[in-house]
Amino acid sequence: MAINRRSFIKSSAAGALMLSAGALGTACTAGRPASGKDVAKADKFHLSAAGYTFVKFDLETALKTLQKADVHYLCIKDFHLPLDAGDEQIAAFHAKCASYGVTGYGVGPIYMETEEEADRAFAYARRVGVKVLVGVPSYGILPYVDKKLEEYPEIKYAIHLHGPDIDIFQTASVIWDKVKDLNPRLGMCLDIGHDLRGGADPVEDLKKYHTRVFDMHFKDESEASKAGWCVEIGRGMIDFPALVRMMREVGYDGMCSLEYEKDLDDPFMGIAESFGYLKAVCDMA
Amino acid sequence: MAINRRSFIKSSAAGALMLSAGALGTACTAGRPASGKDVAKADKFHLSAAGYTFVKFDLETALKTLQKADVHYLCIKDFHLPLDAGDEQIAAFHAKCASYGVTGYGVGPIYMETEEEADRAFAYARRVGVKVLVGVPSYGILPYVDKKLEEYPEIKYAIHLHGPDIDIFQTASVIWDKVKDLNPRLGMCLDIGHDLRGGADPVEDLKKYHTRVFDMHFKDESEASKAGWCVEIGRGMIDFPALVRMMREVGYDGMCSLEYEKDLDDPFMGIAESFGYLKAVCDMA
Repeated sequence: MAINRRSFIKSSAAGALMLSAGALGTACTAGRPASGKDVAKADKFHLSAAGYTFVKFDLETALKTLQKADVHYLCIKDFHLPLDAGDEQIAAFHAKCASYGVTGYGVGPIYMETEEEADRAFAYARRVGVKVLVGVPSYGILPYVDKKLEEYPEIKYAIHLHGPDIDIFQTASVIWDKVKDLNPRLGMCLDIGHDLRGGADPVEDLKKYHTRVFDMHFKDESEASKAGWCVEIGRGMIDFPALVRMMREVGYDGMCSLEYEKDLDDPFMGIAESFGYLKAVCDMA
Repeated sequence: MAINRRSFIKSSAAGALMLSAGALGTACTAGRPASGKDVAKADKFHLSAAGYTFVKFDLETALKTLQKADVHYLCIKDFHLPLDAGDEQIAAFHAKCASYGVTGYGVGPIYMETEEEADRAFAYARRVGVKVLVGVPSYGILPYVDKKLEEYPEIKYAIHLHGPDIDIFQTASVIWDKVKDLNPRLGMCLDIGHDLRGGADPVEDLKKYHTRVFDMHFKDESEASKAGWCVEIGRGMIDFPALVRMMREVGYDGMCSLEYEKDLDDPFMGIAESFGYLKAVCDMA
């Protein structure tokens, strides 16, 4: 048993990763490279981190943490790379990420209520060279964002849902209703914690709305209501085995970005426990 | 799905634990209290830590780390509580552990080659008030240890197996052959990593020898050979789902003590990832 095939593949893959930051994974378990021998585990999605998890820390600390956790993707927040960053600063940013085996796969969440803010966000996403823009638009700016997507055929715009704490885009169904008749690249970042706190079922919502789910924020919640607070993945109310099975069922091929909002001053053990739990779920689900 | 029964129980249990260090768990997931409604998950074993994991750190750091990981049992090493500790020092030690919701469940590993060293270890275990003494005896002292157990009816003596690095007690089968005709309370601490590195199968060995498995050291290994080194649980060669299923099959009711020997100067994220992985395995196996 001990030397089972999958463990062997995982182990050699992990070794390979240490040698090559380029060999970024296609298996969900922390971005370990998929193996032709291991098709069942060659998930299309990847574990990653939302920049906000490191709101109290500089980029280097974030990257060292992801390297330690064997996680290889980061959604870029503006406190790590400002919205007005030029090409040189952006190139240096990507080089630094690569030196830790990390790829900045998207930008955001970026708030936008005016056309200028939308223009700036789209131009930033293109300069950074990412395919996913996680946005927090006002309802009023949505038609303009829809129009912008025609100028940016490489970009998917993922509206971040915020749960019951604010009065717009609370859950996946609210976003769906707003975008279902707009550009097919206008969709959502399914924040499973906020969706749950909004009274929805993130697993069912992924099933219903997956054609417009372009990014996901992973976390766990102490309660399935507005009273819920972020806890380590596995300690809360979200059924992660069911979620991972659904991600596979619908062929989700985006990122699962840990947005760990507990202990923001010292999140490191919580981040590691959360990824450890997720890796096991991906191995077993 | 999100509000599934088990998650709900886990969640409320976690809350309860924060309030009561006394409510130590019977479910394997980080010692969360078992619930009458949650019999399936009311495992007889507990997640815990081997003191050696914190060889570079003081007791307080070890306890804070376990509290953060929601783990509630510690096997006491002499660098945290010396072998000559008196009753007052021992009482203060237990009080400090209790203030973090942690119970010192055993002592060791303690090396012993002479009768004096064996006498001292047994007297220490009794003063500390634990039921498990993890020992590293020489072959020569074994008959004396066997005799000592008659004076110490409350103690189970768990010989720590060391794998291929040394020439005695390499694997579970070696220990079994040495103790099978001796006192039934003379058994082993099944170190699954060293057992694997010794060419054995820890899952099969637990099945064969469980009647004399009184403690377990948990870790993962990069290779199933002497060349293997300790890695975060889930990244290596050990099949933890099979191991947890076997622990349940044989009714293992001891501790699963993480002995994390990687990054001893900064083991915290590795500890948390390992416990996170184990919690998911216990939830899903």
